[in-house]
Amino acid sequence: MNDAPSPDLRPVPDPAAGIAFVGGAYMPLAEATIPLMDRGFLRSDVTYDVVHVWKGAFFRLDAHVERFLASMARLRMSLPLSGEEMAAILHECVRRSTLRDAYVQLTCTRGVPPPGVRDPRLCENRFYAFAQPFVWIANEAQRREGLDMTVSSFQRIPPSSVDPRVKNFHWLDLTMAGFEAYDRGASAAVLTDGAGNVTEGAGFNIFAVRDGGLVTPAAGVLEGVTRRTVIELAAEAGIACEARALAVDELREADEVFIVSTAGGVMPVTRLDGRIYGNGRPGPVTGRIHDLYWRSHDEPRFRTPVDYSAPA
Amino acid sequence: MNDAPSPDLRPVPDPAAGIAFVGGAYMPLAEATIPLMDRGFLRSDVTYDVVHVWKGAFFRLDAHVERFLASMARLRMSLPLSGEEMAAILHECVRRSTLRDAYVQLTCTRGVPPPGVRDPRLCENRFYAFAQPFVWIANEAQRREGLDMTVSSFQRIPPSSVDPRVKNFHWLDLTMAGFEAYDRGASAAVLTDGAGNVTEGAGFNIFAVRDGGLVTPAAGVLEGVTRRTVIELAAEAGIACEARALAVDELREADEVFIVSTAGGVMPVTRLDGRIYGNGRPGPVTGRIHDLYWRSHDEPRFRTPVDYSAPA
Repeated sequence: MNDAPSPDLRPVPDPAAGIAFVGGAYMPLAEATIPLMDRGFLRSDVTYDVVHVWKGAFFRLDAHVERFLASMARLRMSLPLSGEEMAAILHECVRRSTLRDAYVQLTCTRGVPPPGVRDPRLCENRFYAFAQPFVWIANEAQRREGLDMTVSSFQRIPPSSVDPRVKNFHWLDLTMAGFEAYDRGASAAVLTDGAGNVTEGAGFNIFAVRDGGLVTPAAGVLEGVTRRTVIELAAEAGIACEARALAVDELREADEVFIVSTAGGVMPVTRLDGRIYGNGRPGPVTGRIHDLYWRSHDEPRFRTPVDYSAPA
Repeated sequence: MNDAPSPDLRPVPDPAAGIAFVGGAYMPLAEATIPLMDRGFLRSDVTYDVVHVWKGAFFRLDAHVERFLASMARLRMSLPLSGEEMAAILHECVRRSTLRDAYVQLTCTRGVPPPGVRDPRLCENRFYAFAQPFVWIANEAQRREGLDMTVSSFQRIPPSSVDPRVKNFHWLDLTMAGFEAYDRGASAAVLTDGAGNVTEGAGFNIFAVRDGGLVTPAAGVLEGVTRRTVIELAAEAGIACEARALAVDELREADEVFIVSTAGGVMPVTRLDGRIYGNGRPGPVTGRIHDLYWRSHDEPRFRTPVDYSAPA
């Protein structure tokens, strides 16, 4: 006797809802699971990276895979997969999903310890990946009108505790700052370093525009690939950009503010705790960086096209 | 066609390896999973608690359930389960496991967001529980001889970032401190607050013995149930105990040091970065607290016996 419904009778999931790679197999994302006992869950002993696909091509895939391998090394994790093999798995997730615009994640967990063992050195590290529809941190209205942001009372977890260069899921500070933002009527929060400087928010880096140039926090933040892209594109366009400590007061007095993320690119902030930038409309420098960023998606140096045809 | 082996041919898992409660059903722990897309994994947006069963009875079950409910409230989570119903699920996990000494976990995750949504308020929170064999932080030799500990270079994630009263999986600082301890030839690490004071270690609180009395850090630590039990039992036995800032130097110069955890009770530390306490043998005050702790397991005020008979 088998109580499960016949596979024939189950609806076939739409691949465009997402495809995951778990334990060597591809499957609908909604069916993908991890063991309850994986330290990746039970101790958030895990690192990840997110790359996006836009109009059928990965954007800076090499940079993301390289950072992921560096994060793994910093956590003393290893997998029997090369960066090229990981990239091939990501390709296959996207190909199977049919998605032309996608949010694609690589993940390495510490794994399941042997029974009765706490020593993470004895775990076999595990690889999980998935492709899902492109994610926007800011919705369409927010991208047009600008985000309403608050400076959180929560301090970003400091580098003395967790190396921010290791992309990680230690997000409770970011999550609770998000609740605080909602309480204040805002839609996003930027956290401080506890010493009067701005750091980052939930999945994004931040930039202030002052006198036509850019300033972005140098320390206590993820070295985001979108952040790096903005810094590089600004340099090429002759726009000054400094990575240094950015005081909360400087942010408040900036001419423009924007945030950057793989999940949405360059997004304007037009309100900060009631202060309104540029009459509440995204400013010209933000607009220029936005356009440079999206135009760079057509450049061969950043593009890795996905082959959507079935493998031979 | 069905490629899965017939259920009849699969080995029946030993229930004493662990039983989990997931999605309303009891199952072997090794088969328990969570969705890859649960924010409990992807953002470590989760709280938990661990209670132990010793000689067939829960120890301070009410205190653990109460703390779990408080942690959930602080993270703005809710479940359609009362504390009594949670306790009944834990009982059933233990009963099915047949375990007389067990490590029993309650877990609440934020849940799986609707497609394309980042707002944690729109998630349905999920409950997971399991019972597995009792876990000892220190092995038998370490409990007899004492642990060799190091003061980590990592700072414990501060309360300004994550409320330590919310029992959480933000353990990368603890995990990397563990690797550092192994590198130094030690088996455990205690983390500091970055200002010269001791906080806690991976799943344990710490006590120093000075002039016959106890000192334990007051801030930046989980308010452990074992810690609280030691404080209460010490008071009843006329042993002075202070909860206050404990400087690293004070710890180094203590007469004795011990750590406490649901996962093992009261465990001696006999070495700290090369300093040897009490000729390398657990000290008399540690021994007394150890005995008071384990004897308290027979007291009705702390015991909730498990009924191992099948439900009527």
